[in-house]
Amino acid sequence: MNNLKSKRSARLIDMTRYLMENPHTLVPLTFFAERYSSAKSSISEDLTIVRQTFRDRGIGLLETIPGAAGGSKFIPYILKEEAEQFVNEIKQALNDQSRLLPGGYIYMADLLSRPYILRQIGRIIATQYLNHDIDAVMTVATKGIPIAQSIANLLNVPFVIARHDSRITDGSTISVNYVSGSNRRIEKMVLSKRSLPEGSNVLIVDDFLRGGGSAAGLSDLVKEFNCNVVGISFFAEGVYNGERKISADQYTSIFKINTENDKISVSEGNYDNKVYGYLDNKEN
Amino acid sequence: MNNLKSKRSARLIDMTRYLMENPHTLVPLTFFAERYSSAKSSISEDLTIVRQTFRDRGIGLLETIPGAAGGSKFIPYILKEEAEQFVNEIKQALNDQSRLLPGGYIYMADLLSRPYILRQIGRIIATQYLNHDIDAVMTVATKGIPIAQSIANLLNVPFVIARHDSRITDGSTISVNYVSGSNRRIEKMVLSKRSLPEGSNVLIVDDFLRGGGSAAGLSDLVKEFNCNVVGISFFAEGVYNGERKISADQYTSIFKINTENDKISVSEGNYDNKVYGYLDNKEN
Repeated sequence: MNNLKSKRSARLIDMTRYLMENPHTLVPLTFFAERYSSAKSSISEDLTIVRQTFRDRGIGLLETIPGAAGGSKFIPYILKEEAEQFVNEIKQALNDQSRLLPGGYIYMADLLSRPYILRQIGRIIATQYLNHDIDAVMTVATKGIPIAQSIANLLNVPFVIARHDSRITDGSTISVNYVSGSNRRIEKMVLSKRSLPEGSNVLIVDDFLRGGGSAAGLSDLVKEFNCNVVGISFFAEGVYNGERKISADQYTSIFKINTENDKISVSEGNYDNKVYGYLDNKEN
Repeated sequence: MNNLKSKRSARLIDMTRYLMENPHTLVPLTFFAERYSSAKSSISEDLTIVRQTFRDRGIGLLETIPGAAGGSKFIPYILKEEAEQFVNEIKQALNDQSRLLPGGYIYMADLLSRPYILRQIGRIIATQYLNHDIDAVMTVATKGIPIAQSIANLLNVPFVIARHDSRITDGSTISVNYVSGSNRRIEKMVLSKRSLPEGSNVLIVDDFLRGGGSAAGLSDLVKEFNCNVVGISFFAEGVYNGERKISADQYTSIFKINTENDKISVSEGNYDNKVYGYLDNKEN
């Protein structure tokens, strides 16, 4: 009995690790049964415990797909309460007036380089797309990369990086021209031809929305690859006087940052935590 | 009894998740005791099971620090066998001749954008520095960023990104000039002054080593910040005819890629898996 008990303990620990490292992946019951030389019925009980703990702790949904081709799939999310707590914490950090830079820009590189912060941003953005199939996360170099990577980790999909200048190591590229929203200049954006398979569903992310030129350019690039834009999400958006290149219903942002009159003032963006609507279908 | 048992199960699952998300962090026994409203003796038993499973599965070391100020610290590593299996897998992927680009360059952006591959690269590089204190991971934009972020996740430290051109959003910067190893041009590298506190121990990483100019530039930049270079690690190194700006004992690489005569040939780099030497002190 003691031996059995310790076996279950070890299974639960390793399963948790395995599921966390392989989110959005259907893991067949037989995979775990073989991995632990255990009966499927025991594995099934294990997964029920994992599912319940993940739910109780707000870690995510362990979706169970029944049948011969079935198994378990871990779908990470963040619940409203934890998201709000995090957003408040970062709002305070952003409100630090020493972050103000000439021209109304704001220093936030220190925040967007900390693993904990990037993980929570990733969870908040991923939660907004729980009902969507996403095949790739896309951004433009360089400040959006850490955000793209964090979301890609949680969705377990590749991330692709467009650039303003092509590099030798990109190989053949496809490029688009777009009008920068902020300074009305024509800019170019390139993406390696091999980096995005046709028909992919693409989530576009970036650190900051000003005029929306980059986001519109990225959208055009996605279409050039015969792919679909699932959504556009930003860490933060600024105040913009004029018409943006993307409309308010096309994107989400976690923060709104106003730096007018040389004062930083941060409020919540238009992101919405839709996890309950999603879970109504899945967990009950 | 059944209730007690299920409580332990839930604790083990949540603990595993918590430790994985907070590596290299001393978690006091009292933190878990309060989190689960459980006796310290139960938590202690839980941690023994977690420690043993992490070791059995090659996930990492759960270091136990005894005493009133003590607790547990999860130190992720990868064992030789898993590392070698991964290295072989990627070696085959890199050996695909269609990756060859004009000028002897090689396309590898698809590999360095997949969460699983980046995690394993991170584990291999982090394992080489198990005996070192690292406060920050540093790279130069843009292709080293995903590798830096992956290692930073495992070490739970920030990563800092130097650039060839400074951006408004960097604020004040410190810059160094360096001689590019490959084309002997004088280049510039800048880093935001706020991004690296004095006295930090810095691990430098990048995707590819050619002449070593960038790595030498990054080292100079670290010194300009009155910080220390702990080590320099690359995903891959090329064949270089001439003297590199950094010597062979200053860096590690996972792969050596030869593209002479328009043919890709990949072998293992000089990385060394030192986990056993480290564990001799800690696990026995």
